[in-house]
Amino acid sequence: MSDIRFDVTGIGNAIVDVIADADDAFLTENGIEKGSMQLVDADRAEVLYGKMGQAIEVSGGSGANTIAGIASLGGACAYLGQVKNDQLGTVFAHDIKALGVTFPTSLKDTGAPTARCLIMVTPDAQRSMNTFLGASASFGTEQIDEACVSDAKITYLEGYLFDSPAAKEAYYKAAGIAHAAGRKVALTLSDGFCVDRHRADFRKLVKEEVDILFANEAEILSLYETDVFDDALQAVKEECAFVALTRSEAGSVIAADGQIHVIDAAAVDKVVDTTGAGDLYAAGVLFGIVTERSPAECGQLGSLAAAEAISHYGPRPLVSLKELASAQGLL
Amino acid sequence: MSDIRFDVTGIGNAIVDVIADADDAFLTENGIEKGSMQLVDADRAEVLYGKMGQAIEVSGGSGANTIAGIASLGGACAYLGQVKNDQLGTVFAHDIKALGVTFPTSLKDTGAPTARCLIMVTPDAQRSMNTFLGASASFGTEQIDEACVSDAKITYLEGYLFDSPAAKEAYYKAAGIAHAAGRKVALTLSDGFCVDRHRADFRKLVKEEVDILFANEAEILSLYETDVFDDALQAVKEECAFVALTRSEAGSVIAADGQIHVIDAAAVDKVVDTTGAGDLYAAGVLFGIVTERSPAECGQLGSLAAAEAISHYGPRPLVSLKELASAQGLL
Repeated sequence: MSDIRFDVTGIGNAIVDVIADADDAFLTENGIEKGSMQLVDADRAEVLYGKMGQAIEVSGGSGANTIAGIASLGGACAYLGQVKNDQLGTVFAHDIKALGVTFPTSLKDTGAPTARCLIMVTPDAQRSMNTFLGASASFGTEQIDEACVSDAKITYLEGYLFDSPAAKEAYYKAAGIAHAAGRKVALTLSDGFCVDRHRADFRKLVKEEVDILFANEAEILSLYETDVFDDALQAVKEECAFVALTRSEAGSVIAADGQIHVIDAAAVDKVVDTTGAGDLYAAGVLFGIVTERSPAECGQLGSLAAAEAISHYGPRPLVSLKELASAQGLL
Repeated sequence: MSDIRFDVTGIGNAIVDVIADADDAFLTENGIEKGSMQLVDADRAEVLYGKMGQAIEVSGGSGANTIAGIASLGGACAYLGQVKNDQLGTVFAHDIKALGVTFPTSLKDTGAPTARCLIMVTPDAQRSMNTFLGASASFGTEQIDEACVSDAKITYLEGYLFDSPAAKEAYYKAAGIAHAAGRKVALTLSDGFCVDRHRADFRKLVKEEVDILFANEAEILSLYETDVFDDALQAVKEECAFVALTRSEAGSVIAADGQIHVIDAAAVDKVVDTTGAGDLYAAGVLFGIVTERSPAECGQLGSLAAAEAISHYGPRPLVSLKELASAQGLL
């Protein structure tokens, strides 16, 4: 059995976020579904970018944001995701390495440019995302660094990548390596529409390979094709050992070993941009798991990290989550 | 005489800022002079970027920030500056156009990449800048769009560009066009070390061509080689019709037509990042001048715009300065 070098290895898209304010009329005029993630091609990305206001660029990607959050809490992490060797790819690689995260994926010299996510933030702090996958879509089995998976307590998979058949195959490869090494596999469902597109595949993966599952309300309802939250909760807790379901300002529900815990959201003075809320919630929970905390404590860490993420523009923490959590007596 | 199409046309570097937090030890270890701007070559930029923490990317460039501020106040503007046709160049062009600013300079297809400024923000909110000029250094007389200069009430020149002989020549060309059309020429000295490097040239330009001068304390002391602020003030007011001298939290001093006005700084709840403070002060003052306000009113608009800029990361306003100034009764 290999040595444990990492608390969590994340696998997912490798994206730079382009964030600008927009009003609701902008979303309507441009056919953007508020609060969701839409995949766009290069042409649509260019048209939307042309219409957006002045923006900031920050590294993003759901799984990568989660890994950034775990690193900020003091965890040892690796991340696997594909960028091109261009300016935005260099930014992505720099930022994740600057957090002390191992990032073994080589930057590609050819092919599509680095992925970007055009994010419009409406005055209600909701984010609507338009993702041009670019180089990220070329992720496949060959990008799975076996040692990074076998040497991590948990391998964390981002559901968004399920839109790519090659990535789906890579996920099964990673899950096989993790379980063969006696490790755990975690998954986030990422987006309700993504679950709609790949429901059967997600159900199969959850049943067969997932030890720890993250989902928001829309995603878990979609997965079990129900309108009743409790029905989905009762169903999923039979299929997965550890489930964390987020409900925005209503907090979250964790089902661990069949026991259910209802967790409060943490207070936020002013919600600025909800980008990264779910990603950072997962960071707190995963850090709690690898440090062997109780499910309720895991949930509190998740709430704390999510609250930090939504108090500013951009999906990744701006302060040390380790210090923040320590100050609140959670570490 | 040509029609007036612009309130202000800016000429300067075209730069994307890369902003990260750093402590004082980081500056010392890396030989960075706190609060100043150092030019760095591509290798040094790469080394410093490798050591910096996770960052955000936002469009910057001193003159461009000023133009962004004037646009945010409701002014009609143009900007001349050279970027490459790469990802960061596209970001710069997008952001300035998104503000409604005319940006006629073609993106270059060859040569050095778009300029970037690596900015370390220390806990005292001071910014220390390391600029790799890249494509911006190729700015010369051919980038002077004559109509943008002749059709603007004021042409605003950024002192930083004086490090390039070709740009210096371009400035004289622009000043000639502006004055031939009966317009005014404004200059910011940009940086004390920049003035040290080019004192004689700046003195000549100020005397011969500059109608409106901006400088901070270090810059004006360097220009007149004195340690006594009032000595510099008395000297400069004889050489230039309108002079605005900034003194950080002590506010500013404006000398207009020989009359001196002492202007308070505007209150700020929490100073986060002083990047852009001087640039936005100039924006407020220039907008005051083109809308024919009194020198004291110009100064108050400058103080307001500077206060907004230092209350968040990044050099450009995050809110409408027009609305902000209206709410405070300044417009």
